[in-house]
Amino acid sequence: MSMQAEKTDTIVALATPSGSGAIAVIRLSGPEALTIINGVFKGKDLTKQASHTIHFGTIRDDDNRILDEVLVSLFIAPHSYTKEHVVEVSTHGSKYIIESIIKLLIKRGARAAKAGEFTLRAFLNGGMDLSQAEAVADLIASNSAASHQVALTQMRGGFSTELKVLREQLIHFASMIELELDFSEEDVEFANREQLKSLTLQISKVLHKLIQSFEQGNVLKNGVPVVIAGKPNVGKSTLLNALLNEERAIVSDIAGTTRDTIEDEINIQGITFRFIDTAGIRDTEDLIESKGVERTREKMKQARLIIYLIDPLVDAFEEVSIQVADLLLLRIPFVLLINKKDLLSTAQLASYEPLNPVFISAKNGAGVEELKEELLNQVSLRNINVDDVMVTNIRHVEALRKTQEALDKVLYGIDNPITSDFLAIDIRQALYHLGSITGQVSTDDLLENIFSKFCIGK
Amino acid sequence: MSMQAEKTDTIVALATPSGSGAIAVIRLSGPEALTIINGVFKGKDLTKQASHTIHFGTIRDDDNRILDEVLVSLFIAPHSYTKEHVVEVSTHGSKYIIESIIKLLIKRGARAAKAGEFTLRAFLNGGMDLSQAEAVADLIASNSAASHQVALTQMRGGFSTELKVLREQLIHFASMIELELDFSEEDVEFANREQLKSLTLQISKVLHKLIQSFEQGNVLKNGVPVVIAGKPNVGKSTLLNALLNEERAIVSDIAGTTRDTIEDEINIQGITFRFIDTAGIRDTEDLIESKGVERTREKMKQARLIIYLIDPLVDAFEEVSIQVADLLLLRIPFVLLINKKDLLSTAQLASYEPLNPVFISAKNGAGVEELKEELLNQVSLRNINVDDVMVTNIRHVEALRKTQEALDKVLYGIDNPITSDFLAIDIRQALYHLGSITGQVSTDDLLENIFSKFCIGK
Repeated sequence: MSMQAEKTDTIVALATPSGSGAIAVIRLSGPEALTIINGVFKGKDLTKQASHTIHFGTIRDDDNRILDEVLVSLFIAPHSYTKEHVVEVSTHGSKYIIESIIKLLIKRGARAAKAGEFTLRAFLNGGMDLSQAEAVADLIASNSAASHQVALTQMRGGFSTELKVLREQLIHFASMIELELDFSEEDVEFANREQLKSLTLQISKVLHKLIQSFEQGNVLKNGVPVVIAGKPNVGKSTLLNALLNEERAIVSDIAGTTRDTIEDEINIQGITFRFIDTAGIRDTEDLIESKGVERTREKMKQARLIIYLIDPLVDAFEEVSIQVADLLLLRIPFVLLINKKDLLSTAQLASYEPLNPVFISAKNGAGVEELKEELLNQVSLRNINVDDVMVTNIRHVEALRKTQEALDKVLYGIDNPITSDFLAIDIRQALYHLGSITGQVSTDDLLENIFSKFCIGK
Repeated sequence: MSMQAEKTDTIVALATPSGSGAIAVIRLSGPEALTIINGVFKGKDLTKQASHTIHFGTIRDDDNRILDEVLVSLFIAPHSYTKEHVVEVSTHGSKYIIESIIKLLIKRGARAAKAGEFTLRAFLNGGMDLSQAEAVADLIASNSAASHQVALTQMRGGFSTELKVLREQLIHFASMIELELDFSEEDVEFANREQLKSLTLQISKVLHKLIQSFEQGNVLKNGVPVVIAGKPNVGKSTLLNALLNEERAIVSDIAGTTRDTIEDEINIQGITFRFIDTAGIRDTEDLIESKGVERTREKMKQARLIIYLIDPLVDAFEEVSIQVADLLLLRIPFVLLINKKDLLSTAQLASYEPLNPVFISAKNGAGVEELKEELLNQVSLRNINVDDVMVTNIRHVEALRKTQEALDKVLYGIDNPITSDFLAIDIRQALYHLGSITGQVSTDDLLENIFSKFCIGK
């Protein structure tokens, strides 16, 4: 059954997280949403109410037994998220009630919604394009100011509009060139080659900027992977805890919002830094020796940033220099962090200066702020404008690259003796990949793949 | 600060469970709820909209940066749960968004709500009495048809109305008797002793019925504690899994609603049966021998029902008879369950009949339905009308008992030469305890104690 065909069903799902809470929201969408809810609701006649209104009443089962006192919110098509009739039932947050009501609604003709099916309908009904729909999932998953902002920008339009305009222009050229094919005996040129070249270059420039933005966008979305390295017993575990504990205190500030612990992540000025494989650090403190230097090196290569911790009471300047030389070979940004600053004399501190280190006392927390500043400096994310349009989705960047490849062929074709039919094929190829980003071109498989990663109820 | 004084604040909390979900609902209540939300909302002027309407727009922070696209629902005082202005903000279910918006609302003058504070306000503002407020928490915690129904009945009025009427009448007598005290020299009787006696007996009858209902009500609310006992290696673990696995399959039927496992509970016709200390069964299968018979006996005493499992290939009829005789001494309802029915001949099966057993094959599941029927029979909960008013709250039953004690003294006082002043004291005592149930009499400590057990956001 195609996704278009399934669209005539009325779907139902819990839209709020499962678990204990004051209220839960059950969401219905589809042509029968109003009549289904009205059949189990005792209160006003819900089929006669205005859109965007809320109604108090009870939900009754087949035996007229009350399942709950509820508030029903009505969104009359097309004034809803899905552009269909949408009903939201706000119930008491009991699992028993939620299950009973969903079962009842299914009995009355609704179907359990699949993951992401509400947003799929919003897309199929023209409420948003595909890249916006994908941003909805990113927005829900966002856990930092930066990842939130890039997702929100994309959800609210992002690069969609720009890409759509450019694609329209390219479609125009495609049609012109295909017209030439009909008159191919006559050697006419309906599509002005200079204008086509200029448009192709213009699109390439936009694509280039978007492809370039992916590296940063990806880091903003998924966080900066960091490895803490250094010899055994140098204080890595203490340092990690110093960084994480402060974070936990901030995070647990608002009761009830963040009960699940944020594991091994810190947030500096809205950017997430993820510590890779810190379990080993905490357990053994012997990252290098027990697992071997080669293994550590592999781990460090996964990082986008390394914090290299030195115990100056063990390693003097010369020894540290050698380790830094080794680090440099990795070609990954690193912060040289010298521990136990409180135990060093001014002269000792000065001796390390040529290595451009940050001094810290992991034990008493002195220097942690300087370290954070340096982390931001090293990843060059300090002055990013998160309001800029940024590509964060691997699917999008791949489509952009494929579009670029096709456009490169178009450019080659314009400047070389290539026949119009090949040019037309290359332009169609570019249009296909460009259109796949916003969903102007899509297949059931693609949609299935995208929306199955959503949560149920969205 | 007293609870009444705190009532002028505007409070805010997440009302939906924390965790991942499509949407989250943030709730505001208080005199400033509308102005606070209006200050951060871009869209219509929310202070000028009707109650029970929903408005789409964006929430902006101090830098005019969009935190989210939201739907705002308005409930204008007194047409709300708390009887104050209530605003519900439906956001995308991202932790970052939820935290950011709550922080922003707090910055703009709201205060983080304490556990149960919305319902506390509903109580303080006369939206519901105390026993109804307590039922809200029970309703949210309800996990079976029975516990749900008793909580719902209580939330929708339950015994409150009846108790209030009787209390009013008793207050009338208290006033009359206190009037007699003013005229004590004159030996008048304003309060008709016969009528007082009749009313006291009438109240006692109601109290008795309610106190009696507690045993059943408590079981409906908290489930029937069951112990599976029997000799080692008799198949207890297999039996438990057979019972639980079927339950899990039913429970996980609706995707997205019940991700957290229900541990060691089954639901038979709406009644929950909780298996006590089953960890031991699963780990060792040697409940009796390794921990000692005495220990098992202690455990069985906590049960309201025992399933005693026999392996007929090990213990013949005579041996089983001895075990049953032991069981009878406990005076706890039990089901004698004979395992491996598939391996027994008809004659063997018949030989056990005098002991009135249920036959089962824990391995292939045969007989499980018969066992469930028998469990229901044994707890005499089959024909309970869950719509009946039932006391499920230990605080209520204690207050009812204390009221009864005071009324017993009143009855004694009427029939014996006790002076009016002592009679007045006993009636006041009864009124105090009776009033504490519905909250007509309450203290900050009592309220604190009750509402602190609620979840935040309710």
